[in-house]
Order: sequence, then C-alpha cells, then structure tokens
Amino acid sequence: MQTNLTQAATLLKAADNILVLCHANPDGDTLGSGYALLYALQSMGKSVRLACSDPIPGRFSYMSLAAQAIQSDFEPQFIVACDIAALQLFGENLDIYRDKVDLCIDHHLSNAGYAKHTLLNSEAAATCELLYDLCLELCIEITPQIADCLYTGLATDTGCFKFSNTTPRTHRYAALLMEAGADYEKINRLMFETKTKKLICFEPKVMSTMEFHHGDRMAMITITTEMMEQSGIDASMLDMFAAMPRQVEGVEIGVTLKQRDEDHYKVSVRTNEPIDASKLCAVFGGGGHVRAGGCLLEGDLDSVRKRMIDAAGDALENAQQE
Amino acid sequence: MQTNLTQAATLLKAADNILVLCHANPDGDTLGSGYALLYALQSMGKSVRLACSDPIPGRFSYMSLAAQAIQSDFEPQFIVACDIAALQLFGENLDIYRDKVDLCIDHHLSNAGYAKHTLLNSEAAATCELLYDLCLELCIEITPQIADCLYTGLATDTGCFKFSNTTPRTHRYAALLMEAGADYEKINRLMFETKTKKLICFEPKVMSTMEFHHGDRMAMITITTEMMEQSGIDASMLDMFAAMPRQVEGVEIGVTLKQRDEDHYKVSVRTNEPIDASKLCAVFGGGGHVRAGGCLLEGDLDSVRKRMIDAAGDALENAQQE
Repeated sequence: MQTNLTQAATLLKAADNILVLCHANPDGDTLGSGYALLYALQSMGKSVRLACSDPIPGRFSYMSLAAQAIQSDFEPQFIVACDIAALQLFGENLDIYRDKVDLCIDHHLSNAGYAKHTLLNSEAAATCELLYDLCLELCIEITPQIADCLYTGLATDTGCFKFSNTTPRTHRYAALLMEAGADYEKINRLMFETKTKKLICFEPKVMSTMEFHHGDRMAMITITTEMMEQSGIDASMLDMFAAMPRQVEGVEIGVTLKQRDEDHYKVSVRTNEPIDASKLCAVFGGGGHVRAGGCLLEGDLDSVRKRMIDAAGDALENAQQE
Repeated sequence: MQTNLTQAATLLKAADNILVLCHANPDGDTLGSGYALLYALQSMGKSVRLACSDPIPGRFSYMSLAAQAIQSDFEPQFIVACDIAALQLFGENLDIYRDKVDLCIDHHLSNAGYAKHTLLNSEAAATCELLYDLCLELCIEITPQIADCLYTGLATDTGCFKFSNTTPRTHRYAALLMEAGADYEKINRLMFETKTKKLICFEPKVMSTMEFHHGDRMAMITITTEMMEQSGIDASMLDMFAAMPRQVEGVEIGVTLKQRDEDHYKVSVRTNEPIDASKLCAVFGGGGHVRAGGCLLEGDLDSVRKRMIDAAGDALENAQQE
C-alpha cells in the first residue's frame, strides 16, 4: 500500500525495536538512507539495528563501523527497507525478512510493492532525498553524522550531481546538508577520487583493448576472465568500465564485453543520441533504457565481437534513415 | 578600486559599445561569465563584442559559435575583463587592452587589481556566481542561453560540485539555473564525459608507467616527450593526469613527471593529509598549496626520478615524526 510522509512518520513514531534493512551489494544510497534512519530513530530514544546481507565496503566506514549482527536478544518488531526495489535484492542473509517488511522507503519507479506500506517518490534522485523529508517530518535535527549519510546518497546516485536524474531539489538538499555539517570534501574524495591499486593497474590493460568501428562511431572494450584472474579482479569491480567507450568524442555506441565463462559474454551498451541502447540490446534478447542497456551473448570472443559490431552498424544505419 | 554589485551595475547601465574579455587558454568559467555578460548586455539593447586571445575549444561551442573578431567599425568605449586575475593572462592578442580595463569581474583572491574598477568575491566558487548576482542587479531575465553559460562556469570550476571550493550557494545557484533552462545533462556530458580518441588511447600508456614506492604511500607516473610525440599529444592536453597517482587508495604523495625537453622535467605533486605539497616542492625551488604543488627539475629521467623518490621519502618520514 502506498503511504505518504505523514503516515510513514506516524508509523515510525509508534514503533520500537526497529530493524533497518539495506540491499545486497550495498551502495551509497541504501547505506546513506539506512544509517540516517538509524541515527534519526536512535535520537528519538528507540532501539534500532541495521542489517545488510553483504559486508559493507570499507570506503563507507565513516557512516558507521559495520552493520550490526542481530543479537539473539533483539527481536525486531518493525522492519524498514531502505532503497530496496525488489525482493531479490535482499540477499541471502536477509531472505527471512522478505515477507515481513512493514515500511519500504524507495525512489525506484520499478518498486515491486512487496512491503505493507511503501513510501515511494520516483522523482527523487536518491532515497536519501526522501529520508531528508522524513527527518523534517519527524522533527529530527540533522546532525553532521546524519548529514554525512544523506549527502553520500545524493552524491553517489547522481555521479556527483552530473547525471540526468539530478534535479534542482537535489542541489538544494545538498546545500542544506553542507550547512548541517556534511564533510562533503572527504566524502567526495572517498567516493569519486579513490581507486584501489589493483584497479588502477588493471585500467590500462582494459583501455588498451579499445577498438573503433564504423568510422569511429562505435567503440568497444573487452574484459576476459583471463585478464581478471591475472590481475586479481572480480566481476563486482568492473562497474566503472561500462561508461568508458562512450566517453570518446564522436562515439555514438560504446560497448563493453565482459566474459562470464568459457562461452558467455555479458554486454553493456551505452549510447549517445539518437541511438536507442535498449533497442540494440533487444536484438539479443536484452533490454534497458534509451542510453544504457545490456544483454548476454553466447559464443567465443570472435563471434560475440562480430555480432555486436554488425548490430551496432545496423543501429547506426537505421538512425540515419529515421 | 574595489567596487560592489550596485556600482558595477550602474557602470554597465551607463556604458555602450562594450568589449568583454576572456583569459588566454579559455576555460568554462571565463567563457561562461563572458558570454553571460554579453547576452545580458545585448538584451539591454547595447552593442557588445567578446574577445579571447586563443581560439575557443570546440566543446564550448554551445555557448556561441566563436569569439568575434573586433571589426574596424567597432570602437570599444567600455572594457570588461571576466575571470582574468592577472595581466599576463590576457594573452598576446589582447595585450593592447591591458591598461584599458574599466571593470574586472573575478573570484580569484590573487586578483592583481589592474582594472579601474574591480568586482571581486573570493568566496565565490566561480566568476559565474558573481555574474548571476549581476544579472539580478541589472534585472536581466536569466534566459536558457544565459543559464547554460553560468551553469558551465559553476560546474567546471568545481569539478561538477566535487571540489572543496563548492559552497551551499554554488548548489543553490545550480538549482536556479536548472530551473531557468540550463541544459545541464548536455553540458555535464561535454565537460566531464567526453575525451578525444587520441587522449583515450594515450591514457593506458601513461597509466602503465605508474610505480609505487615507500610501502605504496607514494605513486608516480611519467610522461616523456617521446610518448607524446608518438601519440600526437601536446602539453596542453596533460592536465587530467596530475590527479591520477593520488587517486590510488593509501597513496599520500602522487607525483607526475612531465618531460619538457632533453633534460628538464616539470613535476606535479598532489598530496593527501598530512603531507604538505608546497613544502615538498620547495625542496627543489617550487611551490604551490598544501594539497597541490609543482617544481622544475633538471637532469635525466633516472636522476629526476631518484630525487623525487628520496624527497617523498623524507616528507613521509618527517610527517610521521610531527
């Protein structure tokens, strides 16, 4: 059932022994909104725990030291999910809470509506925007600690206010959070200016695979399992690469081939106007959005490469005719 | 003479045949503030030209097609310098205006005060913040075109709201400019997500020179003239590299060696707390700020490398003792 800010605040005021859940493979917005809620509720004198199926990456440690293991003496009486759009995002260790969520706070249009009450605003750039509103509704003071958490969600979900989901409101909330004491300089450095040594050594290997086709209107990079094994890189560290091929001036279709096993490649497609990435990926049974899509291809590298080059050529030709 | 907003607006209202100057090697803030002023004054019915000593890079072409050549029939009666902190930044082709500037609008604390009147606010993240205030003072409507120009200055001078010079006001102005029609999505893509093919092919070559010293607390990259010649890269395209060595997790001193000629290397130093970059560079007669400094070293690559590694080692040791 959809709920509004006032109703959500009323539910939280009445609750105690509250368990806050973050999604698996946690990012800045699920942790930022989760920890902000934890601190807000604690300041109201409530007993609260936060849980996440996966370990919390070290770069977020300024929010808190760790998610708390739920001790045997903590019996959750009210469960809140932050930024969790669908049940499969709970992760293995939180599966037991799937059908017990009292309140879900989220900004994903695709939210599956699995919770008893859902506070949803798909126009918010981040769930942390909703948490800011909720703190006001609950008359909670935005402490520097809460401001750190909320700023993290705003900044990470918008690529530091760069992506098209950024709104005037996102900027205004960032201003208010800076005034409330968010250490934006430290947070931005940790989120956007810090890479592991492994990754920085892996980057040139990936970049040097870049190839250009169709008069430089298509660029493609390839990451094989052999490359990853040699550098000690796992698939969860590859997110940053998908954006790179499209960054080249003049490129309309940027493709990243990531080998999954012997004969499967996960393909990420990023496009500039007028190419539709989801249409291109649909050729191979994939999907996505206008500017970003994905699909899975079977075959050896040569065959996968060739099929992607051909499909990109068709997409470029069709775009010209339209 | 220092002037305030009201006085600057009064001067501009009384003026006509106005020449707006941008600094050499133009960036987003000098062009954004210059073009915003041009459009504002044109909307008041005034005759205005904009000039820059160097060609305007193509990525800024959405602001206007080009700086206008000053035709023989245009006799400037009032000259405004935008974001030009010092006389040596006028560039060769604007040298004739050095001692003729009626009004300088700037945000650099170091502004040399060369103009008859100077509107200076060193707390502004960008000169474009002052231009926004000036438009309000002049009762100019912020058109989408003016909003594009002003947003560009705010975004480029703050690394898209990432650097420590960003203030709550910067965010609030960004919000207002988005509402006024700034095409922030396109601008951010052009400014922060677009690299030339040459540069993207050069990047892995530079990254693969990265070496680590002092228990990975120092990282260093090297760019030789031979590497640049082979890739068709010139020195003006190397700005982005200085930040890379410090981006590695755990690195406290990031060093970039750029060969200038046979036996000279320009050295950029970036540090994290507690290392003072300007002190480290002072060892070799250089200088700078706490987090960013530079110096020039004479010698062959081996000797320059060794001296920088030793100096970094000393700095790390001293920092530990303090």
